[in-house]
Amino acid sequence: MQLDALFSPRSVAVIGASQNPQKVGGMPVQLLQRLGYAGAIYPVNPSAAEVQALPAYASVADLPVPPDLAIVALPAAGVEAAMDQLIAKGTRAAVVLSSGFAEMGEAGAATQARMAERARAAGLALLGPNCLGVMNIRHKLFATFSPAPLAGVPQAGQVAIVSQSGAFGAYAFSLARKGGLGLSHWVTTGNEAALSVADVIDWLADDADTRVILAYIEGARDGAALQRALAKARAAGKPVIVTKVGRTEAGARAAMSHTASLSGEDAVYQAVFDATGAIRARTVDEMFRLGQAFAVGRAPAGRRLGIVTVSGGVGTLMADSASDLGLALPELPDAVAAPLRERIPFCATQNPIDVTGQVTSDLPVLGLAASGAATSGAYDALAIFVAAALASPVLAPQIVAMVQDAVAAAPDVPMALCGIADAATKQALLQAGCLVFEEPTHAVEVLAAKAQWAAHHAESVHVPAPLDVAPAVLNEVEALAFLQRHGVPAAPHRLAQSPDEAVAAWQALGGQAVLKIVSADLLHKSDVGGVRVGLRSEAEVREAYDGILADVARLAPQARRQGVLVARKLSPLAELVLGARHDPVFGTVIVLGLGGVQVELNPRTAVLTAPTTAARVRAQLAALGVLKLLGGWRGRPHGDADALVDVVLRFAALAASLGPRLGTMEINPLMVTADGIAAADAVVNFA
Amino acid sequence: MQLDALFSPRSVAVIGASQNPQKVGGMPVQLLQRLGYAGAIYPVNPSAAEVQALPAYASVADLPVPPDLAIVALPAAGVEAAMDQLIAKGTRAAVVLSSGFAEMGEAGAATQARMAERARAAGLALLGPNCLGVMNIRHKLFATFSPAPLAGVPQAGQVAIVSQSGAFGAYAFSLARKGGLGLSHWVTTGNEAALSVADVIDWLADDADTRVILAYIEGARDGAALQRALAKARAAGKPVIVTKVGRTEAGARAAMSHTASLSGEDAVYQAVFDATGAIRARTVDEMFRLGQAFAVGRAPAGRRLGIVTVSGGVGTLMADSASDLGLALPELPDAVAAPLRERIPFCATQNPIDVTGQVTSDLPVLGLAASGAATSGAYDALAIFVAAALASPVLAPQIVAMVQDAVAAAPDVPMALCGIADAATKQALLQAGCLVFEEPTHAVEVLAAKAQWAAHHAESVHVPAPLDVAPAVLNEVEALAFLQRHGVPAAPHRLAQSPDEAVAAWQALGGQAVLKIVSADLLHKSDVGGVRVGLRSEAEVREAYDGILADVARLAPQARRQGVLVARKLSPLAELVLGARHDPVFGTVIVLGLGGVQVELNPRTAVLTAPTTAARVRAQLAALGVLKLLGGWRGRPHGDADALVDVVLRFAALAASLGPRLGTMEINPLMVTADGIAAADAVVNFA
Repeated sequence: MQLDALFSPRSVAVIGASQNPQKVGGMPVQLLQRLGYAGAIYPVNPSAAEVQALPAYASVADLPVPPDLAIVALPAAGVEAAMDQLIAKGTRAAVVLSSGFAEMGEAGAATQARMAERARAAGLALLGPNCLGVMNIRHKLFATFSPAPLAGVPQAGQVAIVSQSGAFGAYAFSLARKGGLGLSHWVTTGNEAALSVADVIDWLADDADTRVILAYIEGARDGAALQRALAKARAAGKPVIVTKVGRTEAGARAAMSHTASLSGEDAVYQAVFDATGAIRARTVDEMFRLGQAFAVGRAPAGRRLGIVTVSGGVGTLMADSASDLGLALPELPDAVAAPLRERIPFCATQNPIDVTGQVTSDLPVLGLAASGAATSGAYDALAIFVAAALASPVLAPQIVAMVQDAVAAAPDVPMALCGIADAATKQALLQAGCLVFEEPTHAVEVLAAKAQWAAHHAESVHVPAPLDVAPAVLNEVEALAFLQRHGVPAAPHRLAQSPDEAVAAWQALGGQAVLKIVSADLLHKSDVGGVRVGLRSEAEVREAYDGILADVARLAPQARRQGVLVARKLSPLAELVLGARHDPVFGTVIVLGLGGVQVELNPRTAVLTAPTTAARVRAQLAALGVLKLLGGWRGRPHGDADALVDVVLRFAALAASLGPRLGTMEINPLMVTADGIAAADAVVNFA
Repeated sequence: MQLDALFSPRSVAVIGASQNPQKVGGMPVQLLQRLGYAGAIYPVNPSAAEVQALPAYASVADLPVPPDLAIVALPAAGVEAAMDQLIAKGTRAAVVLSSGFAEMGEAGAATQARMAERARAAGLALLGPNCLGVMNIRHKLFATFSPAPLAGVPQAGQVAIVSQSGAFGAYAFSLARKGGLGLSHWVTTGNEAALSVADVIDWLADDADTRVILAYIEGARDGAALQRALAKARAAGKPVIVTKVGRTEAGARAAMSHTASLSGEDAVYQAVFDATGAIRARTVDEMFRLGQAFAVGRAPAGRRLGIVTVSGGVGTLMADSASDLGLALPELPDAVAAPLRERIPFCATQNPIDVTGQVTSDLPVLGLAASGAATSGAYDALAIFVAAALASPVLAPQIVAMVQDAVAAAPDVPMALCGIADAATKQALLQAGCLVFEEPTHAVEVLAAKAQWAAHHAESVHVPAPLDVAPAVLNEVEALAFLQRHGVPAAPHRLAQSPDEAVAAWQALGGQAVLKIVSADLLHKSDVGGVRVGLRSEAEVREAYDGILADVARLAPQARRQGVLVARKLSPLAELVLGARHDPVFGTVIVLGLGGVQVELNPRTAVLTAPTTAARVRAQLAALGVLKLLGGWRGRPHGDADALVDVVLRFAALAASLGPRLGTMEINPLMVTADGIAAADAVVNFA
């Protein structure tokens, strides 16, 4: 969507402009005038000839030209009519600050939907309602009623902030100013009648002034749009740092009471962030730290970190942190290490490279170590701890010069310095492309995040053709057959309709038999006596067959009895549960977890959007510990991990091809044996 | 130990005092003079009549009085003689800044050990060598060569910093100054020839000026002393915030190369911190945040947190964090909620209590919500997010007044405010006993840490009488018998010396039989064909007996064959590994983990110092997921958790009673069945 009129308007009308500069309709007029907006400002107010010393207009119709942007600050009751007038006038964008719409109930939601529909039809970009507005720092556009800009405006920069929440947006604005973070745009989306956080990210991905995007999301209505926008930003090389609240159950409960909307399952959001390379921040602090980090210098080309330190202990602390984050700490090559050891007797030249307190009397060794490590080819990034040295007015300029030298010598190796720097020193280091932190572990964390972001590869996903099915509930045998037809192997089994057939099936299958009632009406077969296991003789099989039918007839008389499934008992290396469902926000998702007793020890499940890729499935199988179970551990046989990945991929593609027809599809258990992969039982129904 | 002469000396001699105020021997003279030390300063220098305008003495013997404290800043070669002279003179404490001792090799270590021994005999408190010294902020004692105090001294306060590392200490000092953290003492212990971090914590636990202790530890030599000191501080109601580096393997490797000493296994340190209520900080940031948090206001009496927020989204973020940390978020009682809802139409009165942006036009509702929640009896602590409001010079004083009212109304409910405050506002809030953070999750984290610390109960541990045993390697049958004699039940088993005896044993035991070779010489019995399982008939048992003896004779001809153990195959609900060993730093520790295939899914092990308590064992069994396995999950039988805790306690007591006699003691597996707890196999040997 074209959002230039919203973000860089040549003229702004304020509908409901107030003489009082503290009011919702007065603040934007004040801000635009005081903070240097260069375009035309048209206050609209039926009962004033002037507003804050500007000539006012009685109505939208009276405006001399159609304004690029209109700021609507009327009471809710008057907004819809004003929007119609703006459309009639030919206005191209509107920010509706007014509240009293969807957040008030159904009537408000209906009004809001009508406004959005008419705006869409007219090609008007609508932000809000119930939002705190928008700012473009370079353009000096302050279309907001937040008084925050009066206390000072952050410098113009390359970081954009987009927030669903106004209060969060205002807080973020103040933090940016305080932390010296340079901003391009600041956008709050409020009720998102038309424009959503996803739309704004989509536009920012193309915006030349923006290099990094900080996004605050409470819940997306259109998951596909969010996923597309995140992928587009990643493809444009612009990191998106996301704060998505409602991670935990308590948080989700709070979010629901706050937004009165289903925010979607958090694990699905995480899967989307993983798939699109978006970086999730868990705190506001971290969001800003990452925002600044991505705005300065390059991203490391790999995960090899060099640590240079004046304190062995702090070097160890940083090594702990690097290890937590999966960074490698290769040793300093001897060609660089040897001269260092000669110069500093106690210098530890492994990694961390500890130049010791000696540095106090011989500062140049620090530069020697930093430049040596940077140009050694052994490291993709460098973290340097200088303790209190940066605080010294004598040492600080020397350290800055050393850093400049090291950066010039190895421009591809990003660096982060840890120490206490005053504002000017910090600025000089950032200008040189070197990050600065007081907390040593923060340097390691941001370098790890940048390396991880750089390593993300856009994966092309094969989207399967839609599969049309009629609503139906399949029984076990039908479900296994359906899966088998689509490439998901089933464990050997037979359908028996008599004790004789059951015995014949057992004899054909071999081993110990498992018998289960077949019924599309029964989800929990064990509870009604519908399962017998470990049967080793004809007599046992006959008795089991009769027993199952008798028990089910007694305990679930209404359930259809469609026969008895006879299967061979398997000895799995791993027992999985593989399910698919239709997420209201993100569409088809699959859920993968351990089954049987193993789930008690690792109750984590992996969530993936479907269709997905082999790399993503493999990563999740590794995280669940499944790959280890298949690795021939303690002399047990190996399982075929490739085949398992393939089965999961087919299952995900099948689920995706069903689209909204997908009701329930679950394999439980999916057995991985030494002989292959097999679905031993399944539930399938179509909506 | 009496350390008053070290921390509050009436006179200080500087041995090796230098005219140059930048040198190691000159800096302390400069600092003591410039920063207002009130006692006598005696420079000792054989070749100067005056040092930095003070009369100098040619030798220690020439000093007019025995100084309370001597600062030794000589080259290493002269230090030992100087120490002897100081002892002869009657000096009561010495800080040895000089390096060149244990960190240089064996000769240095020997010199250092001699100095420590003579100091001990003479009752002289020795800090260092190779340390950065000591400061007492109130006393204006600056016995250090760090130039950091020249740039400014932190205000006097109730937080003490003790650091093994000088560089870390200097960094911490600068951070305290910058962050406005009030300090009582600052101590670096360096090589710890005599005084260790543990000794300093022990002294600070009694010190009236100190309320909170920040400790930085690379590795303790005397683990028992550290444990005693931490327990003493906890008993004195003084929180100890510990940064112990070397958490990860990479970190431990770095620490070892740095200190060239075995720092002890990190999990054992963690067990000690858990047992003594010490709070572990993972970053320098966190260490200071917790230090400040514990210095202001009370600790919450429980884990019920109330969240008051002006932003629903940030409230959700805080709820996520509270949930991560195990805090409860009970709803606001209706008596308080109803009037709030009346006043603010969209106010969410559950928890988070969201007073919405409305607060901008009606600030008093924030005070109403805060005081209402604080006095409601529903919360043990309150976290309040006010977004950018604190930055407003108009709103800030009103918010401070509200906080003061709320604190006065509910002095037992600690509060933390989140917002952007200037220095004066922050100071006013801290003075009122309310913590202040910019990052909303930090407020939740520190309140959780304080609640956890407050909930720690000193547990009295029953120390068993020492058990004297001769060095020996027991075979399986002897090992099980030894454990059984000390209250650890063994699974039913018999020792067979012939096929007939094996058959008789199987018949007596019932069920399926397991046969294993008995040999004190074999640790891995399966590898040499020494194990047969699942035997169901007389023929199978006979064949197994003969097969085992033949295989072992062939594959391990040197091993004694002391018979064959016959046991009944068990069906465990949980299979554990329970081991004990003698840690070089902390003495007896026990290690508890899952056994069998379960360990692959949860490879975590729990480490406990021994003897231990039922509460601690139970907590670790819960963390390992064992309690869940015994909980009758999915229709399986229940296991007796109390009996399991009891067996682990007996095992721990037995291991502790063996003390240094403990070689190896491991039960693998320890079976928990529906019938009880039983060691199925064990290795025991005495050193």
